[in-house]
Amino acid sequence: MSESGREMRVTRTEDEPAIMAISRAVGVFSAEEVDTVQELLDEYRTRGAEVSGYHFLSCLVDRRVAGYACYGPRALTDGTYDLFWIATDPAVQGRGIGGALSARCAELVKSVGGRLLVAETSGLPQYAPTRRFYETHGYRLEANITDFYAPGDDLCIFILRV
Amino acid sequence: MSESGREMRVTRTEDEPAIMAISRAVGVFSAEEVDTVQELLDEYRTRGAEVSGYHFLSCLVDRRVAGYACYGPRALTDGTYDLFWIATDPAVQGRGIGGALSARCAELVKSVGGRLLVAETSGLPQYAPTRRFYETHGYRLEANITDFYAPGDDLCIFILRV
Repeated sequence: MSESGREMRVTRTEDEPAIMAISRAVGVFSAEEVDTVQELLDEYRTRGAEVSGYHFLSCLVDRRVAGYACYGPRALTDGTYDLFWIATDPAVQGRGIGGALSARCAELVKSVGGRLLVAETSGLPQYAPTRRFYETHGYRLEANITDFYAPGDDLCIFILRV
Repeated sequence: MSESGREMRVTRTEDEPAIMAISRAVGVFSAEEVDTVQELLDEYRTRGAEVSGYHFLSCLVDRRVAGYACYGPRALTDGTYDLFWIATDPAVQGRGIGGALSARCAELVKSVGGRLLVAETSGLPQYAPTRRFYETHGYRLEANITDFYAPGDDLCIFILRV
C-alpha cells in the first residue's frame, strides 16, 4: 500500500460486491451494461484472466475498493487491448483513482507487448466527463461514428498508444 | 432459385465444408481468421442464429455454395450489426455474388429494425479489393485507426446505413 492509503491489485472475488455497487452508483451505466460487468466478472472468476480475456484491476483506498478497471486483448489483433470498463466510486472521485487505474492498465498492457488501449464511449452529453477523462489521460479521440449505439448516440473511440 | 441459377438461403450444416474451403481459398484470411470462421459456424450450428448472435447466409450458384456472409448484432447497441465475414469463391468472383450477399444482409438487418451494418477491414494493400467492394456497395469509410491490427496494419471501419 502506498502512503496515500491507495493499493492497486488484481481483483479478488471479495471485491465483486463493491465493483457491482460502484457500477450501479456511477449513474452512466445502463442496466444492461451493469449486467455485462457481472458477466465479465463471472468469466474472470471462473476461467481466469488469461483464458477469459478479461483482466480486472481493483484500486483500494484505506482497504476499501474505490474503483476498478477491466481490460483485455482484442481478438485478431497483435497488441491491441480494449479498456472495457473503468469506474470510480462517486464518493471518492477527484482523487486520481481513475487516472491511476488507467495508468496501471497501460503499464500492464505494455509489459506484455501491447501497443494500443482502446476505450469506446458514448457521445451523449452525460458522458462528457468520461470523454474529458480520456482526453486528460493521454487518449486521443480517433473515431466518431454517428448514431452507433442508438439514434442520436454516437460511438467515440479513444486510443491510448502505450 | 432465380433465373441466374442463384439461390440465397440461411446456411445449412451441409454448406459448412464449402464455406471453410472458400475461407481458405480467398487468400486474405489468416489461419487464425479461418479458425474463427469455424468457431462461429460451430456456435451457429449448435446454438442457432438468435442465441449465438451469428447469422450465416449462403449464396448458391447452380446448387453449389459460391459465397457466404456472417452478421450479427453488436452488444450494447440498439440497431447496429456487424458484418463479420463476407466471401466469394474466387472461381466465381465478379458475378455480383458478394454484392447480393451484402444486400441480403442489409435487408435482413433492416427487417428487424437494424440501422447500421459495420464492416471492419484492414488497410493493408492486399485488402484494397475488399475496401473497394464496400465503397462500391454503399458503405462509407467512417473511421481509420492507425496500427490497430498490427504495426503498419490499420483498422478501416466501413458503415452501411440501411
